[in-house]
Amino acid sequence: MFAKETYINRRSALKQYVGGGLLLFLGNEEQGLNYEDNSFRFRQDSTFLYYFGISAPSLAAIIDIDENREIIFGDELTIDYIVWMGTLPTLSEKSEQVGIQDVRPQNELYKYLQKAAGKGQTIHYLPPYRAEHKLKLMDLLGIAPAQQTGSVPFIRGVVAQRNIKTEEEIQEIEKACDVTADMHITAIKMLRPGMYEYEITAAMNQVAESNNCLLSFPTIATINGQTLHNHYHGNQVKPGDLFLIDAGCERPSGYCGDMSSTFPADKTFSPSQRAVYEIQNAMHLASVKALRPGIPYMEVYELSARVMVEGMKSLGLMKGDADDAVHEGAHALFYPHGLGHMMGLDVHDMENLGEIWVGYDGQPKSTQFGRKSQRLAIPLRPGFVHTVEPGIYFIPELIDLWQSQKKFADFINYDEVEKYRYFGGIRNEEDYLITETGARRLGKKIPLTPEEVEAIR
Amino acid sequence: MFAKETYINRRSALKQYVGGGLLLFLGNEEQGLNYEDNSFRFRQDSTFLYYFGISAPSLAAIIDIDENREIIFGDELTIDYIVWMGTLPTLSEKSEQVGIQDVRPQNELYKYLQKAAGKGQTIHYLPPYRAEHKLKLMDLLGIAPAQQTGSVPFIRGVVAQRNIKTEEEIQEIEKACDVTADMHITAIKMLRPGMYEYEITAAMNQVAESNNCLLSFPTIATINGQTLHNHYHGNQVKPGDLFLIDAGCERPSGYCGDMSSTFPADKTFSPSQRAVYEIQNAMHLASVKALRPGIPYMEVYELSARVMVEGMKSLGLMKGDADDAVHEGAHALFYPHGLGHMMGLDVHDMENLGEIWVGYDGQPKSTQFGRKSQRLAIPLRPGFVHTVEPGIYFIPELIDLWQSQKKFADFINYDEVEKYRYFGGIRNEEDYLITETGARRLGKKIPLTPEEVEAIR
Repeated sequence: MFAKETYINRRSALKQYVGGGLLLFLGNEEQGLNYEDNSFRFRQDSTFLYYFGISAPSLAAIIDIDENREIIFGDELTIDYIVWMGTLPTLSEKSEQVGIQDVRPQNELYKYLQKAAGKGQTIHYLPPYRAEHKLKLMDLLGIAPAQQTGSVPFIRGVVAQRNIKTEEEIQEIEKACDVTADMHITAIKMLRPGMYEYEITAAMNQVAESNNCLLSFPTIATINGQTLHNHYHGNQVKPGDLFLIDAGCERPSGYCGDMSSTFPADKTFSPSQRAVYEIQNAMHLASVKALRPGIPYMEVYELSARVMVEGMKSLGLMKGDADDAVHEGAHALFYPHGLGHMMGLDVHDMENLGEIWVGYDGQPKSTQFGRKSQRLAIPLRPGFVHTVEPGIYFIPELIDLWQSQKKFADFINYDEVEKYRYFGGIRNEEDYLITETGARRLGKKIPLTPEEVEAIR
Repeated sequence: MFAKETYINRRSALKQYVGGGLLLFLGNEEQGLNYEDNSFRFRQDSTFLYYFGISAPSLAAIIDIDENREIIFGDELTIDYIVWMGTLPTLSEKSEQVGIQDVRPQNELYKYLQKAAGKGQTIHYLPPYRAEHKLKLMDLLGIAPAQQTGSVPFIRGVVAQRNIKTEEEIQEIEKACDVTADMHITAIKMLRPGMYEYEITAAMNQVAESNNCLLSFPTIATINGQTLHNHYHGNQVKPGDLFLIDAGCERPSGYCGDMSSTFPADKTFSPSQRAVYEIQNAMHLASVKALRPGIPYMEVYELSARVMVEGMKSLGLMKGDADDAVHEGAHALFYPHGLGHMMGLDVHDMENLGEIWVGYDGQPKSTQFGRKSQRLAIPLRPGFVHTVEPGIYFIPELIDLWQSQKKFADFINYDEVEKYRYFGGIRNEEDYLITETGARRLGKKIPLTPEEVEAIR
């Protein structure tokens, strides 16, 4: 938790931004895994955390701009709760720490909202991402789940603030990045043919947990790097495999890290692994070099795609003009995702509020395969924290589909591509802060060039 | 996954039990942590797993007893899904493996149910424990969340089957218990003063994950063992502390283990720690000795409580007749939870279906503090798998409350209790299978007696 003033100032800026009405914040609930009391780890909603700092279930809050009131709604602990869950600071004490004196029982929230609606106040709320919130919004505001689209001024106000990270936030993110880097370095050092993927995830998770962190998202650690979000960990590693990891941790404060690395199961890359790796590395280095305030991140994405096309041409896998290939989307056969995303209290920061508000400033997104997965398009600004994570993959099902459709036959040499059918995939990822003059990598360095990777294998 | 016949036979027995109507099974969905696509680990609903064996999100199934049909509802993978999540056996292939040939798209479920309702068929469903299911039952059956109490014949049929574990289930549970024991042994060996609680949880989690298991519930690993379900792991361990662990793992099949252990931060117990530990140990050993088919587990609970009262009398903490103390509930100051619970695909097996059906055969539960937390009361039967986990705790808030109310002053020497105010808590826990003639411990042995504990410290 930051100092009281941080939360007071954040709320004050939000009130200014939205201007009027009433802002409703729903904190998260405990969620049952296989029955109600066996819950997943509790994770507070990031926007609630940002403005109210309290990581505890079953809370809600209101900023009543018209009446100039800030209220937390929640119940104090019963003795039964204390026996099972322990003593904690009371809700009033915790609220005081974030500058809120007005704490009311949960069951007064509905009455408050009814009264506000009766007075004709506008009630702003955020789009729900959990079913429990859909039920609540239905009960509290009488809006059916399909109609719960959220309030644009509220969304835009939150995004305007949370997109620009302050010094104290950057320190927290950097600590998460340091632990994230250690997770990767541990994995890169330990992998040997014969191990199972789950042994690697186990070791990385231990690094996170023994630093009092949790995972910021489910770890990807796989010999099938061509599957972008592969959460299966049951395979045994064979000589000749490429191993891809995408993993990060979250600090107790909620701030995240997110990195990727790819390395050979053997001590060194094979010649063909190294050739493709070098292309991916060139994409990465060119992207990082381009980072500076003012450049639209969509341009950096396009740059990384052009570097890939040129590289694939040199291997004989692609042909034709690189600009045209990227414009038309031919590169997406090998690079079907974006270059990066905002990162902060969420690993894809504020994805729940909508990518068009976070990364597109309200402008529509492309629907082109590949390009549509670019989550951040707008000009970079000092204080942005985002990932850089280009990739190259050989996805047999996608290759077969496109080839059968003769798709982009002017740009893709399918006969050559066939030779790489079982190659797998490569992704490397680092986290950057945009500064006044350029960009700064956050956290400890992980091996990136082929030489750096081989040096710690 | 077991052999196809296992699932066919389970469904056939359930049809026989319920006799008529239509049984609706809702599989679980992915659930977002802080936005929709950043999901918690996927956990299939245990009843769905028991009858249909498929661990994948967004499925539903119907056993139409009247029409003699078994149908799985779900959608095959799109190419976008394959790019991000990989190729898997198709839903039809997976369904075939559990003996289901009739697979239909998700969006046909509603029509099927409408038709059945139109024909006057009874639609049986289970009580929901996730908000997503409450929304679904509202949409599919038109029942408001507050009225979604489930169908008793369906619940009783599932409980009748799942309460009795078969040989193949016992083998899976025993494997989970072996890994669970290793988690505890690792922790008991490694703990030293100066460590943080989260370092212990990290090491235990690594044992689980490197055996391709996940946690069956959030690990308790704490110097504040008096808090029964303490999930905070931020404390540093001091000399003189008692450390309490309650943790277990879940196999890929979903079957669970659940054990507890308590040990000193120092190499040996202090005299007062040892004195209380020996009482807890006597409760445990007496309970295990009493296990046999036919004995109501509530009687074993009462036995364990009487052993505790006698022990506490010998320390001067309690007084009066042990039978009376237990009958009136005075023991619950130190022993506020039950002796154990069913275990299987859920660590508290079928808690989502209701304890009165699983552990009370439909009879009402006591409302007495302590006794009300006994989850299993009925006579034990061969094939039951349950925990044995008596405990002794000194909970300052509870002691203060009872003392201020002069509660059970005939049984409790509050002046003496005060001396143990900061003692902490002790719990040990093993898992047992009821056999034809008695009971058998499942999984590797963990240290239980004070001598066994000190030997591996």
